[in-house]
Amino acid sequence: MPDLDEILDAAPVIPVLVMDDARTALPVARALVAGGLPVLEVTLRTPAALAIIRAMREVPGAIVGAGTVLDPAMLDAAIDAGAQFAVSPGLTDSLARAAATAPIPLLPGVATASEVMRARDHGFSRLKFFPATASGGLPAVKAFASVFGGLRFCPTGGITQDNAPDWLAIPAVACIGGTWLVPPCDSPDPAAIEQRARAAAALKKD
Amino acid sequence: MPDLDEILDAAPVIPVLVMDDARTALPVARALVAGGLPVLEVTLRTPAALAIIRAMREVPGAIVGAGTVLDPAMLDAAIDAGAQFAVSPGLTDSLARAAATAPIPLLPGVATASEVMRARDHGFSRLKFFPATASGGLPAVKAFASVFGGLRFCPTGGITQDNAPDWLAIPAVACIGGTWLVPPCDSPDPAAIEQRARAAAALKKD
Amino acid sequence: MPDLDEILDAAPVIPVLVMDDARTALPVARALVAGGLPVLEVTLRTPAALAIIRAMREVPGAIVGAGTVLDPAMLDAAIDAGAQFAVSPGLTDSLARAAATAPIPLLPGVATASEVMRARDHGFSRLKFFPATASGGLPAVKAFASVFGGLRFCPTGGITQDNAPDWLAIPAVACIGGTWLVPPCDSPDPAAIEQRARAAAALKKD
Repeated sequence: MPDLDEILDAAPVIPVLVMDDARTALPVARALVAGGLPVLEVTLRTPAALAIIRAMREVPGAIVGAGTVLDPAMLDAAIDAGAQFAVSPGLTDSLARAAATAPIPLLPGVATASEVMRARDHGFSRLKFFPATASGGLPAVKAFASVFGGLRFCPTGGITQDNAPDWLAIPAVACIGGTWLVPPCDSPDPAAIEQRARAAAALKKD
Repeated sequence: MPDLDEILDAAPVIPVLVMDDARTALPVARALVAGGLPVLEVTLRTPAALAIIRAMREVPGAIVGAGTVLDPAMLDAAIDAGAQFAVSPGLTDSLARAAATAPIPLLPGVATASEVMRARDHGFSRLKFFPATASGGLPAVKAFASVFGGLRFCPTGGITQDNAPDWLAIPAVACIGGTWLVPPCDSPDPAAIEQRARAAAALKKD
Repeated sequence: MPDLDEILDAAPVIPVLVMDDARTALPVARALVAGGLPVLEVTLRTPAALAIIRAMREVPGAIVGAGTVLDPAMLDAAIDAGAQFAVSPGLTDSLARAAATAPIPLLPGVATASEVMRARDHGFSRLKFFPATASGGLPAVKAFASVFGGLRFCPTGGITQDNAPDWLAIPAVACIGGTWLVPPCDSPDPAAIEQRARAAAALKKD
């Protein structure tokens, strides 16, 4: 089972997927992996999400996680579906306690200094910064990085291929979450997805 | 007693009132109701607030709530004064527990994903987003709406008649809090208030 | 021992110091005090920080505190080193409980209304607003000031000599944290520091 640093270091971008149709799981995952993005975050926002996680686990080279994990029950469901990691937009005490004994790592979201401190108290040092652009943007994550040593961030939300380099230039930013790889409501076009993945995979982490 | 959805759906704008003089309660409330805004949030920021709530409850058609409810004691005081709902700029565990057994509904405020998750854990699915413009604005509430299904928001803070349509166009936004209807320190002019209320009531919820 | 209001009212700006070399403690502190900024916040971000606090306590007129106090253990270390006050970028329940029985006052950080309410429940009415520019800026602190009566704020993060007057013009802003007085990685030039301190000390608190 990969740990969080292996997951965050596998590629500069983690695609954040909101998908409705389990039949598209395999072609989408194969296109992303082929394009150089092996880490896949399947958000639990659709009825098909757990089936999509199960299907994507079959794709060689893919590291498949569950996103939008809001509470212990959703964490359990993600584990049952074979998720290799979990991501949450935030953190609650109940979710932190459930994660402490879970067999997969959790990347919890933070947006303020108090939230970073609470996550740190629960033992988390790898954090999603969400919603990245709306919650203070680059200056906020730079401020957190300067105050809190030893943390690594995965900013997500409102980041694009064009402004990704600004985020990846911050030393404390390990990688970013990308929502542009597979647009929601896209009838997925594997060739276009692989092309976008290739461009994202070519982003440099300084 | 109206429930939160009835309150949020009664008009596109809830006037947020900061008033010092109980003698102005009746003319202000009548002007707002006559203008098409029946839901009135009287903030507990002034010594006269509880008396103003009591007075406004006499106005036919008015649905009167207490705003700036910061703790269980203020919630109790609001209930005693006859408030039909309560609004808070945020949420604490102690206020959430008090609200769970209160006879009136609470609309708690949130500003981050973790705060939404905590509110959700406490059973709240109707949320104030505050301060709306300063806490990430439209992109933030859109991000929360895309991540958290089934929630309805009442953004408040920094919204004006002119930019209200941008907020009301977001499907997860049920209505907005309006601070411009009765300016603080205004010697209230009922005709001007009714005119502003009429313009606000004419805003379309898509 | 000065209380928080004496500390916040001693000067319009509290220099926030990130220093690596304890040998520079005395010249830097003397330059700041000579320039009119007696309150010094030494952040616990460097191995030398505690030694720097001890050294600076020797400077006549200096009021020396510890910044970046993240948990009860760091609060204890700050007290042991002679810190006269503590500052945190946020607040957790465990830090609040430790502060309640500590012999020095804590200035905790907040960034949202819920965080202000939690701090208030713990008895704090003097609050750092951090990161000030990235967490909503002037409109956010104005919104908090209008909602929460009786609070005093020390905004910190991203403020400069040039935009400091905008912050100090807000009645609820007692003073600001200044990171520009002693730039990190500066081989400290006491004359330049004293000059910057003099300009900062001349800022007017309306």
